[in-house]
Amino acid sequence: MTQPAASPVRVTVWGENRHEQVEPHVAALYPRGMHGAVAEGIVDNLGDGALVRTATLDDPEHGLSEEVLASTDVLTWWGHAAHGEVSDEVVERVHRHVLSGMGLVVLHSGHWSKIFTKLMGTSCTLRWRSAHDRELVWTVDPTHPIARGVPHPMIIEEDEMYGEFFDIPAPDELVFLSTFSGGEVFRSGCTFRRGHGKIFYFRPGDQDYPVYHHEGVRRVISNAVQWAVTDRPERALPTLLRYETEDFFTGHGYGGAMADAAGEPA
Amino acid sequence: MTQPAASPVRVTVWGENRHEQVEPHVAALYPRGMHGAVAEGIVDNLGDGALVRTATLDDPEHGLSEEVLASTDVLTWWGHAAHGEVSDEVVERVHRHVLSGMGLVVLHSGHWSKIFTKLMGTSCTLRWRSAHDRELVWTVDPTHPIARGVPHPMIIEEDEMYGEFFDIPAPDELVFLSTFSGGEVFRSGCTFRRGHGKIFYFRPGDQDYPVYHHEGVRRVISNAVQWAVTDRPERALPTLLRYETEDFFTGHGYGGAMADAAGEPA
Amino acid sequence: MTQPAASPVRVTVWGENRHEQVEPHVAALYPRGMHGAVAEGIVDNLGDGALVRTATLDDPEHGLSEEVLASTDVLTWWGHAAHGEVSDEVVERVHRHVLSGMGLVVLHSGHWSKIFTKLMGTSCTLRWRSAHDRELVWTVDPTHPIARGVPHPMIIEEDEMYGEFFDIPAPDELVFLSTFSGGEVFRSGCTFRRGHGKIFYFRPGDQDYPVYHHEGVRRVISNAVQWAVTDRPERALPTLLRYETEDFFTGHGYGGAMADAAGEPA
Amino acid sequence: MTQPAASPVRVTVWGENRHEQVEPHVAALYPRGMHGAVAEGIVDNLGDGALVRTATLDDPEHGLSEEVLASTDVLTWWGHAAHGEVSDEVVERVHRHVLSGMGLVVLHSGHWSKIFTKLMGTSCTLRWRSAHDRELVWTVDPTHPIARGVPHPMIIEEDEMYGEFFDIPAPDELVFLSTFSGGEVFRSGCTFRRGHGKIFYFRPGDQDYPVYHHEGVRRVISNAVQWAVTDRPERALPTLLRYETEDFFTGHGYGGAMADAAGEPA
Repeated sequence: MTQPAASPVRVTVWGENRHEQVEPHVAALYPRGMHGAVAEGIVDNLGDGALVRTATLDDPEHGLSEEVLASTDVLTWWGHAAHGEVSDEVVERVHRHVLSGMGLVVLHSGHWSKIFTKLMGTSCTLRWRSAHDRELVWTVDPTHPIARGVPHPMIIEEDEMYGEFFDIPAPDELVFLSTFSGGEVFRSGCTFRRGHGKIFYFRPGDQDYPVYHHEGVRRVISNAVQWAVTDRPERALPTLLRYETEDFFTGHGYGGAMADAAGEPA
Repeated sequence: MTQPAASPVRVTVWGENRHEQVEPHVAALYPRGMHGAVAEGIVDNLGDGALVRTATLDDPEHGLSEEVLASTDVLTWWGHAAHGEVSDEVVERVHRHVLSGMGLVVLHSGHWSKIFTKLMGTSCTLRWRSAHDRELVWTVDPTHPIARGVPHPMIIEEDEMYGEFFDIPAPDELVFLSTFSGGEVFRSGCTFRRGHGKIFYFRPGDQDYPVYHHEGVRRVISNAVQWAVTDRPERALPTLLRYETEDFFTGHGYGGAMADAAGEPA
Repeated sequence: MTQPAASPVRVTVWGENRHEQVEPHVAALYPRGMHGAVAEGIVDNLGDGALVRTATLDDPEHGLSEEVLASTDVLTWWGHAAHGEVSDEVVERVHRHVLSGMGLVVLHSGHWSKIFTKLMGTSCTLRWRSAHDRELVWTVDPTHPIARGVPHPMIIEEDEMYGEFFDIPAPDELVFLSTFSGGEVFRSGCTFRRGHGKIFYFRPGDQDYPVYHHEGVRRVISNAVQWAVTDRPERALPTLLRYETEDFFTGHGYGGAMADAAGEPA
Repeated sequence: MTQPAASPVRVTVWGENRHEQVEPHVAALYPRGMHGAVAEGIVDNLGDGALVRTATLDDPEHGLSEEVLASTDVLTWWGHAAHGEVSDEVVERVHRHVLSGMGLVVLHSGHWSKIFTKLMGTSCTLRWRSAHDRELVWTVDPTHPIARGVPHPMIIEEDEMYGEFFDIPAPDELVFLSTFSGGEVFRSGCTFRRGHGKIFYFRPGDQDYPVYHHEGVRRVISNAVQWAVTDRPERALPTLLRYETEDFFTGHGYGGAMADAAGEPA
């Protein structure tokens, strides 16, 4: 057997796309939307290694129909002003796909999205300030594939500040730490495995700064997209099954809690 | 300064209490309910170190009013047949208290409770079989306070089998592993920190077996109760606040996403 | 930029090769040595994706000269009866290469090798029994690349038993758990990152059983070899350097502890 | 059973005590030595809860005889200029006691001590600068007992800078992060469990600054001392033992690698 042939990663870049419509200074920074800039960065870095499309809040079903998700290897998520407008039905659908094996890359203010807080189980809150802080992104896991080719430190001249305490579960892997001119610190690059899916949270990026045009930021997002692709051949939700003794591979469906006793061998 | 005076841990033992009412063989094993047996085990082990009360599904507000939770240091949770009957409002309340600092010890089939799956963000599913397997509980973190005084292995003559893959986030600390006569394995003692709260999941225990009368199982639950007490003086939910440069201690409330730009220093 | 062209992984399979010379039943199981069987399994699985050579204890410098290590992406290690005969100088050399970015896959009784205990810092001891136990290898991290294509569980009809407590640091990632007919359990697939190097410990395999002819075991070792390749372009030891304020990229050499004060800006 | 009666923690504060003798400005900051200041801080915080003694490099056996270690619950370690003068025999002894259950708190430049690098298995190197940076210590694990009563952030007006990449294994728990005026970041409060022992590394503190007189720093060290006490009743090294099937509690000594086959049941 040889190494699996690498097929292109199918990426869906999701953007809330509200600031870009409402605030002229954001539209000026991101004429094709922040989702456009994120998508562009992935194409620049991965070339033929990725098939990239975008979807936004105002699309039908937010552009995240069952069909779209079923054909998405990795979804990236940016939202901020309209987290509450994302329908619970779509959030359930995305959640199911992540647990079934779809990769998820959550960007910046996506920390408060319904999908991220649902996956984390915590408030995902933090301290913040938007005051043109310089952000330095330091690599603390230098062998991690998401850190490949990233300067140490990576310098972002201006960005919003996010500071600890960031109320997330302890990440499975802590890849990056950010510091800010004001002295604050943030766990800014974190991996989480949930179900059959791989999740990366990456802090930099704000509607008020040109962060998604930053070459290093785009590199990290592209690395994360590659990392988040599942190694499992099929998309499947973990499912409760009953197994008879010595039959390790044939699971039986669940008949309900009270049926336990009934179904139990004497 | 000296060590803080140890005041008794205020424990609320929550039990679904349905099997005990519906199934005579369960009532025979647990005449005071499984919650009664769990409470008894904590009293036996902690003595004056704990103030223990019980609450059940059929109590008003499931016995988990704001007042009760506010005066609970650690909540233990057993449910199975009626997870769906637990009101979402109570689940939200318990979730808020855990993130604010209340300890939570989740027992056995509580893996599928609304509160545990909400805190984990995953399906929390597993493989299972109720066929009188012998369970061996092995300690893999021998310096952990929850393992104090626990035999290695701890032998439970008969118990339901739970097997991997257990769809939980990788635990912060893996304390115990269980094996079963049939050869299955389970991460059976896991800690998780969420917000300001400490959570312990412990696998053994089933309505069909006298597991909550087992001395070692009672010891583990009692150790977990002590461990889960927060070290923070007040119960407080992590909250998003804005901090001006060089003012690290005075946080300002959040005015909404679109107000960011307005509130931003020029 | 496109995805990096995948060049073949340069693998050195190290074997102690003593049991094979001294014990006829081992020679019968492994006519080309255990190292031969391990190498063969990697070639079968990775094909053109790997360049595999072997080295043994009795080779000059144990076959692990500076030149060999410098041209090795991943080293696999099996030893048992002669850990003490491995020269400290070679161990130091391997240690330096691992911290500088060489991958290391430690197999079975290699848990007590000088290089593994030096990298772990602990005794790496365990409980054991060689009594034809059946071993079941369960995947607890189903999204991990090392678990790709591995049955759940993987059944090894006969193997030596290793049981907990296994005195290692808590692994960065716990990929596999093994159970044995006797009821014991073992953390049998563990990743560790040390310096710029990635390490995988894999339990199955013993001179008295044909474990390295097992298709699944060979698959895991091959996956591990691919996983352990560093993403860093050069092999470099982490080094203490002094950095002036605002010069993040130009490190200065260390002049000794007492020179600190002297070198300190007034 | 009631809660175990808390007996005083027996603490040995080890100091290299060379800068204090050679450099007048250090002697002026620490007239009773840095070890004296550390010991004083523990006494101030723990009162009757601790029995504190000190030991230094120039004492016979560096003040760390078998007898001293056997009666030490937690050892704290500060060294810098003379790591190489610590005898290997004493390092082996301390290592054995840590794996057997003695707690260890490693301070600041102790990162390069023989005992810490031996326990970590890595280079423990870092970036640094001594230029009167302000250090801010942020808590990222607010429920951890070592963070109890520690300001968020804790401000240290002047300190040496240590920056990432800090070549340590990923800590079991990351409790504190430090930032410096220059923008660097450091994982400054880390726990590690090794064998039966608990280890805490704490970054702040340097011979050139009055850090060990800082109330918050002293609080952290005192919390760490309490945390590092083992919960195991006896001090015992993990040991390889053979167990017959179904006899889980009677281990047999190891007869050597080649004896495996001989000792194996037919």
